[in-house]
Amino acid sequence: MQNPWISLLTDFGLQDPYVGIMKGVIHTLAPQAELIDLTHGIPPQDVAAARFALMTAYSYLPQGTIHLAVVDPGVGSNRRAVALQITQGYLVGPDNGLFSGVLAQSPPLAAVQLNNSRYWRTPTPSSTFHGRDIFAPAAAHLANGIPLSELGDPLNPAELTRLDWPEPQPTPSGYQAVIQAIDHFGNCITTLPESLLRGRNWRVWVRETWIPLGSTFASSSVGNLIAVVGSSGWLEIAQNQGNASQALHLRVGDEIRVDWA
Amino acid sequence: MQNPWISLLTDFGLQDPYVGIMKGVIHTLAPQAELIDLTHGIPPQDVAAARFALMTAYSYLPQGTIHLAVVDPGVGSNRRAVALQITQGYLVGPDNGLFSGVLAQSPPLAAVQLNNSRYWRTPTPSSTFHGRDIFAPAAAHLANGIPLSELGDPLNPAELTRLDWPEPQPTPSGYQAVIQAIDHFGNCITTLPESLLRGRNWRVWVRETWIPLGSTFASSSVGNLIAVVGSSGWLEIAQNQGNASQALHLRVGDEIRVDWA
Amino acid sequence: MQNPWISLLTDFGLQDPYVGIMKGVIHTLAPQAELIDLTHGIPPQDVAAARFALMTAYSYLPQGTIHLAVVDPGVGSNRRAVALQITQGYLVGPDNGLFSGVLAQSPPLAAVQLNNSRYWRTPTPSSTFHGRDIFAPAAAHLANGIPLSELGDPLNPAELTRLDWPEPQPTPSGYQAVIQAIDHFGNCITTLPESLLRGRNWRVWVRETWIPLGSTFASSSVGNLIAVVGSSGWLEIAQNQGNASQALHLRVGDEIRVDWA
Repeated sequence: MQNPWISLLTDFGLQDPYVGIMKGVIHTLAPQAELIDLTHGIPPQDVAAARFALMTAYSYLPQGTIHLAVVDPGVGSNRRAVALQITQGYLVGPDNGLFSGVLAQSPPLAAVQLNNSRYWRTPTPSSTFHGRDIFAPAAAHLANGIPLSELGDPLNPAELTRLDWPEPQPTPSGYQAVIQAIDHFGNCITTLPESLLRGRNWRVWVRETWIPLGSTFASSSVGNLIAVVGSSGWLEIAQNQGNASQALHLRVGDEIRVDWA
Repeated sequence: MQNPWISLLTDFGLQDPYVGIMKGVIHTLAPQAELIDLTHGIPPQDVAAARFALMTAYSYLPQGTIHLAVVDPGVGSNRRAVALQITQGYLVGPDNGLFSGVLAQSPPLAAVQLNNSRYWRTPTPSSTFHGRDIFAPAAAHLANGIPLSELGDPLNPAELTRLDWPEPQPTPSGYQAVIQAIDHFGNCITTLPESLLRGRNWRVWVRETWIPLGSTFASSSVGNLIAVVGSSGWLEIAQNQGNASQALHLRVGDEIRVDWA
Repeated sequence: MQNPWISLLTDFGLQDPYVGIMKGVIHTLAPQAELIDLTHGIPPQDVAAARFALMTAYSYLPQGTIHLAVVDPGVGSNRRAVALQITQGYLVGPDNGLFSGVLAQSPPLAAVQLNNSRYWRTPTPSSTFHGRDIFAPAAAHLANGIPLSELGDPLNPAELTRLDWPEPQPTPSGYQAVIQAIDHFGNCITTLPESLLRGRNWRVWVRETWIPLGSTFASSSVGNLIAVVGSSGWLEIAQNQGNASQALHLRVGDEIRVDWA
């Protein structure tokens, strides 16, 4: 049984041919694989941003997709190279926490270290580009139907590196949370899930500024700040046709607060 | 009869996984669809730029292509979600004028509102990401051969929102026109079509500067300004191996003038 | 016999639909072709950067790949449009030196000028977009199995334009070389191949700064400068989790020196 879909997520950017090289390696080994780019615009070495992007995207891809994710500041060090099986497919990449957002939603069914050099591109991989020499080949072999257990030694999923934001903290009048991501539009995505907000009226505070709640970006006037439940189910701070991150000088990790009204 | 080609044009950028999520939704519904990215670099909410990009690109894609275009500042408001049939294929996206450049060249044969929730990804779509929940599924269903008329209520094409630049205005000595787009190279593309320029000699003026006419970027010396008929048939202001937009501080909407010599 | 793989490398950027237009032209002529983007982020008109990117990438793509490369400051002038056969596949683009890095590793087996207008998209190609009207169609026809010799008049490979960096120069105590490329991470890739460095201990000098040699980016402390043999086999100057180009104000063409220790 073959898995034709491979998604790609890296911090390689698109100015160099590194992504194309990984695709070339995949298609050389697995010509039938179909590739979907999630993003190659993760800021260099930003494992937390990669964790968020993969967590919000993976469930929309076809069942069985192999997610190849390479944001790998520790390449060539003793960090582990891993492949994991989840209900929806596979995860392939470095064990540095970038999968921990997905795994919090979808626990690993099996895990291996990618230490069987027979499935590397070369027995002497580059010490700086495991995406090309170890991870892309592993994804291609999985797409070809090679069992996960062939790719290396089994790993106890409990030992996988975790990197998660703290859960929203209850306060006497509501919750305290943080900005976990800022997107291309400047929308600031918090760690507050919609589920905690249901059934009550809320006031959202960013520092001393009160942000009115709305249901769509366009439900306030152009230029107005608004808090909405975004498309992945978290509370977001947005600006109608503007950039909330710039308007409020918000950064990932900054605190926000919701109080019931 | 199936339409395997779907083109994508958005203002989502490539740093977030939003484009990959739309592709995942498409391939989940229509695994056989073949995707062609037109661009995801439309400036945020710039419907005019999207209109221009789609108008210059659509006719080069395979016959039958479904053009999925999502630049959607009004997402979640009462702006309509639409799908249109033209001779060359289909157009799917918000009814905010982004299709009006294409439609001026290729009138709609049929139009529907995308209000049949059976063909949405979910009966409760996100109010901020119709690309994922309404438009990508509509494109996928068209690729699967679902008839346009199934996707929602028919719409009178005359009611579609239009957003077009004014036609070049005749002057006593020639024409006045505007810059309708500026590309990655800084080439400034005017609204003057080649057809108006044929058979006469012209002088091109940008403010008080006279720009010599040439036939190729390389037909003047490096660094020189030049006016050429560009690859889509409009007069462009360019700089040989330079950036005319920066050199002349030109922006979209700025006026230019041609006088016969 | 058909060649399904076509790689694309341009300086078109991704904000305009130019790349999508080329893909549309290819798929209109060769629906079965499979495309791999190498990069579209070559700086405008930077033939040297294109030469480097293609040279480092081509050998990782499937055997038979047709490499379509369009960085073409001389478009519309009398520079030649060419297609070349090499052992690993084909090269299609302008004859301005962008193929000379590949050809230094893999000499041309055959070469033609793309002057048979029967295989152009139109007998009257745009003078500013040969990517769309001449090069993309040539790649598509090769993918369809049209013989190279059909595409135009044969060309003596010795007449092809060359653009190569000088070889590293021996000095009394080692070698002098230059930075030939700087990547997205700020890694500065020199012209010194690993083969010249084997079997000795080296000190790497950038101006008056001595850079310690390491085997991986992570083998020094965060923020430290390090010299490593990179993934394509050249000595690189890097900064662990930083940007060496910015830290050292290094640019392409700058000199570096290695002395044996």
